[in-house]
Amino acid sequence: MDIKAYLREKKGLIDSFLESYFSAPLTPKTLQESMIYSLSAGGKRIRPILCLASYEACAKDNKVKAEDIIPYAASLEFIHTYSLVHDDLPAMDNDDLRRGKPTNHKVFGEGMAILAGDALLTEAFYMLSNNIKKPSTISRQPSAVLRVIREIAMASGVHGMVGGQAQDLLSENAEPDAKTLAFIHSHKTAALITVSVRSGGILANCSDDELFKLTKYGENIGLAFQVIDDILDVEGETEVIGKPKGSDEKKKKMTYPKLYGIEKSREKARELIYGAINSLETFDEKAEPLRSIARYMLERKS
Amino acid sequence: MDIKAYLREKKGLIDSFLESYFSAPLTPKTLQESMIYSLSAGGKRIRPILCLASYEACAKDNKVKAEDIIPYAASLEFIHTYSLVHDDLPAMDNDDLRRGKPTNHKVFGEGMAILAGDALLTEAFYMLSNNIKKPSTISRQPSAVLRVIREIAMASGVHGMVGGQAQDLLSENAEPDAKTLAFIHSHKTAALITVSVRSGGILANCSDDELFKLTKYGENIGLAFQVIDDILDVEGETEVIGKPKGSDEKKKKMTYPKLYGIEKSREKARELIYGAINSLETFDEKAEPLRSIARYMLERKS
Repeated sequence: MDIKAYLREKKGLIDSFLESYFSAPLTPKTLQESMIYSLSAGGKRIRPILCLASYEACAKDNKVKAEDIIPYAASLEFIHTYSLVHDDLPAMDNDDLRRGKPTNHKVFGEGMAILAGDALLTEAFYMLSNNIKKPSTISRQPSAVLRVIREIAMASGVHGMVGGQAQDLLSENAEPDAKTLAFIHSHKTAALITVSVRSGGILANCSDDELFKLTKYGENIGLAFQVIDDILDVEGETEVIGKPKGSDEKKKKMTYPKLYGIEKSREKARELIYGAINSLETFDEKAEPLRSIARYMLERKS
Repeated sequence: MDIKAYLREKKGLIDSFLESYFSAPLTPKTLQESMIYSLSAGGKRIRPILCLASYEACAKDNKVKAEDIIPYAASLEFIHTYSLVHDDLPAMDNDDLRRGKPTNHKVFGEGMAILAGDALLTEAFYMLSNNIKKPSTISRQPSAVLRVIREIAMASGVHGMVGGQAQDLLSENAEPDAKTLAFIHSHKTAALITVSVRSGGILANCSDDELFKLTKYGENIGLAFQVIDDILDVEGETEVIGKPKGSDEKKKKMTYPKLYGIEKSREKARELIYGAINSLETFDEKAEPLRSIARYMLERKS
């Protein structure tokens, strides 16, 4: 399959939704501008796309379309975006550039960046709980939606992403050790990616067995994603990765290449990606996008 | 009725729930300690208590007990606490003291305070969507729970509390004007208080007419609460209010006393409180706690 065309198409769905979401002006305008600035800063939309691909992979019905669950998928991009805005703050990673553009607090000030992050996170839960009625939208079972909210909250908070971010902050300048590094990567990055995949399955009413396999797929690509990120920070081109190369090293971050070296990190990424693909063995051709996304990750340059 | 005894009893229910909530150790420990530090920093638990009182006021059944909805009520305290932690940050209000104790970032550092706030907000939505099964817990209708989540998210984010906070930040040093002040107060404070009252009603399956009246009650006491806060900042004792007196003036905040003077502000608070009590006219004696809480607000010193 043409994975680039697939990613482009699905990214287009998410981007149009995000563009129209804030089409009405809000008060205060600056807060809205700050939220939109980071939401539209060139994200690859990988989390929402995984949610859509997983939904399609589990669909039992030919009438099921990715369009049905756009707000649920988009909520994952809101959460991802808020986490970037807060991570970039001076009290955290202190980054001036993100995807080649000045970070949110560089443009809107620290106070507004904190509030924009808070608002993006809160809005994600509004979108998840708001049953937007459109002709194309299949009405979701409230209990499935509640489960998705619970899982996304679990994966994003103290038990997931924020926990990983806190450990990352506490581990700067510390001697790298395998256990702490595994904790940081599985919580900071893999938890939200895994729940993106799981949400699509749950909304498609998948079986427990399917959900188990989707979870393995999600955990594998989630970890691979972070390992590849760490490698790109060492080997990527500043113009392509959108931030200064070597910034992990400069901040004395605990990373995969630092602990295992570049070659072993590359091997680890490959192993995780093939583990992800293998876990979908029993899925039919509707899971081809999920498999192709995994393969594509190994090639990414930014 | 003995309102002090009522508040003490309900605060006890919320406090025990919060204490047991984090009884298991989490990783990283510092993040958990930072969350607990602010959750247990002597809050009056007014928002959860309003939720419980409103639930009891609308209960059609004698077997209904406030204990049934503790996690829903407690989630409001998580959201309130996160908002205080973020508001106190140097980039926002830059406060060193809160309720007589050093603010979160003074103890744990700015990065950890930002993350603790993020985790508290996220955990609120986890609690709201997590159907905790206990013998005493009446299983809630998923659709009512989804409605509560949607309303709480709406009241806390860009359309509510965070919007008000952003306007507050943007209005420092500006000439006070009535419209902006009304916007700040209704969004920053009254929105979360109103939704606390509404949530209790929705969870008790109240009628549309009851919900309409509860909303009027909530909006009135919510505004009164902020007006009284503004007055206490001018007239209160530092030891009693737990922060330096006159800090609004020092930060050039837009407040009620600044725009209307102390006497007119007192009058406004009284008017709002009696408006709140009047809106519950058709409620029976089960709404007595709500009425007494409103009266009690006029007397508060901290």
